[in-house]
Amino acid sequence: MKTVFLMTNVLLLVLAYGQKKDDKFEEKPILIKEQGAFSAGGKISKSEGVFDPNKPWFEPQGGQTRHCDHADVWYQIPVHYKHTSMVFLHGYGQSRRSWQTTADGREGFSNIFLREGYSIYLVDQPGRGEAGQTCKPLAISTAPDDQTWFTQFRIGKYPNYYEGVQFPKDSISIDQFFRMMTPNTGSIDEETLVNSLSEVLNKSGDAILFTHSAGGLPGWKTAIQNEKVNAIIAIEPGAFSFPEGKVPVGNRGGSIPMDQFMKLTRIPILIYYGDFIPKEKTTTYSQNFWREVLISAKEWAKLVNENGGDVTVIHLPDIGINGNTHFIMSDLNNIEISDHIQKWLKEKKLN
Amino acid sequence: MKTVFLMTNVLLLVLAYGQKKDDKFEEKPILIKEQGAFSAGGKISKSEGVFDPNKPWFEPQGGQTRHCDHADVWYQIPVHYKHTSMVFLHGYGQSRRSWQTTADGREGFSNIFLREGYSIYLVDQPGRGEAGQTCKPLAISTAPDDQTWFTQFRIGKYPNYYEGVQFPKDSISIDQFFRMMTPNTGSIDEETLVNSLSEVLNKSGDAILFTHSAGGLPGWKTAIQNEKVNAIIAIEPGAFSFPEGKVPVGNRGGSIPMDQFMKLTRIPILIYYGDFIPKEKTTTYSQNFWREVLISAKEWAKLVNENGGDVTVIHLPDIGINGNTHFIMSDLNNIEISDHIQKWLKEKKLN
Repeated sequence: MKTVFLMTNVLLLVLAYGQKKDDKFEEKPILIKEQGAFSAGGKISKSEGVFDPNKPWFEPQGGQTRHCDHADVWYQIPVHYKHTSMVFLHGYGQSRRSWQTTADGREGFSNIFLREGYSIYLVDQPGRGEAGQTCKPLAISTAPDDQTWFTQFRIGKYPNYYEGVQFPKDSISIDQFFRMMTPNTGSIDEETLVNSLSEVLNKSGDAILFTHSAGGLPGWKTAIQNEKVNAIIAIEPGAFSFPEGKVPVGNRGGSIPMDQFMKLTRIPILIYYGDFIPKEKTTTYSQNFWREVLISAKEWAKLVNENGGDVTVIHLPDIGINGNTHFIMSDLNNIEISDHIQKWLKEKKLN
Repeated sequence: MKTVFLMTNVLLLVLAYGQKKDDKFEEKPILIKEQGAFSAGGKISKSEGVFDPNKPWFEPQGGQTRHCDHADVWYQIPVHYKHTSMVFLHGYGQSRRSWQTTADGREGFSNIFLREGYSIYLVDQPGRGEAGQTCKPLAISTAPDDQTWFTQFRIGKYPNYYEGVQFPKDSISIDQFFRMMTPNTGSIDEETLVNSLSEVLNKSGDAILFTHSAGGLPGWKTAIQNEKVNAIIAIEPGAFSFPEGKVPVGNRGGSIPMDQFMKLTRIPILIYYGDFIPKEKTTTYSQNFWREVLISAKEWAKLVNENGGDVTVIHLPDIGINGNTHFIMSDLNNIEISDHIQKWLKEKKLN
């Protein structure tokens, strides 16, 4: 009986694969070869003294270690996996969940690309989410700030949504969106962060690195450090590493030696910005913030390309795609964006 | 070409399903119908004042909300899913990763049961892991304490492993194990925790609730509150809810009204404890701790069963399974344990 049932299902599977491309993704099963979790990179702190295993809870509990400041990774390898994997790094105040779902529960980028045959490695950076064990504590603020982020992420000017915004306007979706935020649990220096990401790449092998927002800067530095980064797709990166002596006024990303900068010319880089970024200064702080970032992005791309690089900056309204927020990968049109990315990957022979 | 390739793979799939039961799990693909993430339950805190969307970052940033104290859930529904799902709740200092993998990277319980056709719902409880956004902050300690946990979790008396312990002794595994710890990011009351778990059950539908360690107590209370808990499988629960007036000396779990206690008699409950729990008092604090917990477990089971319940407490060495630590679900023999659980599920018609 069981065998017959399974055989029937296998036939259905065959039929599913025979469907036209414009059918809904959700109707095809995802075939997973392997999935699991691991930590990458990190530090070990130690305390003075001698540990007594008969009294583990009594002071002084000296002579101990603390394994800390690592990245935490959830990975899935599909049955028909491509040579090149994908590594996903979230932005400020977020975890890997940024990539795994959307505010209204549709599929996020990691599902979409997993279905295309990419192995996915989803990172919680050191001191965030399930990588919460740190060596230097940080006070967590619990001051209400949902409306600040709603505005900074260009969903609208709270309580109003931007007209035509690609964000679901029901009350459940905005509730789910706000609950995706998760705080830093420790003070992590950039070197520790980049080293942990580099260790993720050592596990994933050759990979396309996706970054979001504040993940942009450590993303550039990971590509400089580890040649297994074969390409970067940056969703609204907030800052850029310019070479020493060539840093524009107002740059937020600091500077790096020219020989490091040159390593960024070896790989294709695709950068997206969404809508509601005005050409001229406005009275809204967050819109000006992203206006300045977009100017930086274009200056940086020009400099990388002048040195032999391959950076493409796409301001989505310029190619007729309107309404995107700061969360392009989970906006209502994320399938359209992922199709755009796949064309680029094909062009760069990374598919 | 692509169709031919897929057809071949489908044939391999058929062959894989035809394999004998004692073949390695890892050779069969997992067929996923749907996977994603959501938040469940939680609170909303509010600040006084008026929010100005033009100046989101400037003080005073009043008139705001903070969505907090929810559970975060990662779920996967297999193609051939059973009616009854499985919900997994971690223990103290842990996240859902407790269930997703093992110290040495083998498959955890959530993979093993997903392969058996159960939809899995993996929880980070409020204030833990990716459910880090809380309303009441809590100072995070970064004092080195790995050796305390190594001892409390009965892997050994640090630096020595217990003889015959079902834990991998290589240096990479213990490093990965220590890095699974992740702290509380807020102060969460029990009612908020149990409400969030109950909301997870409202999403999962009828489910078997797995709990580990400190997850035991909120597990009992979730089953009292939500009838969608069809069974509980508790791995080394640390505390028990006794009825008012019948609380044994030294009980750690507080008391509940008799009518609530009676609700626990409606569902089958399976409880496991591992090895290295002595019959008599010893000089090692952690061993005595678990000795007292095991005594409580047996007293509690007796009382539930006297009132018409169906609780089975299994001290693994009593059935000839030796060497288990506090992390029975990820120990070296976790396949043997999962087989034991599956026999019980079959007996209880929950498979």
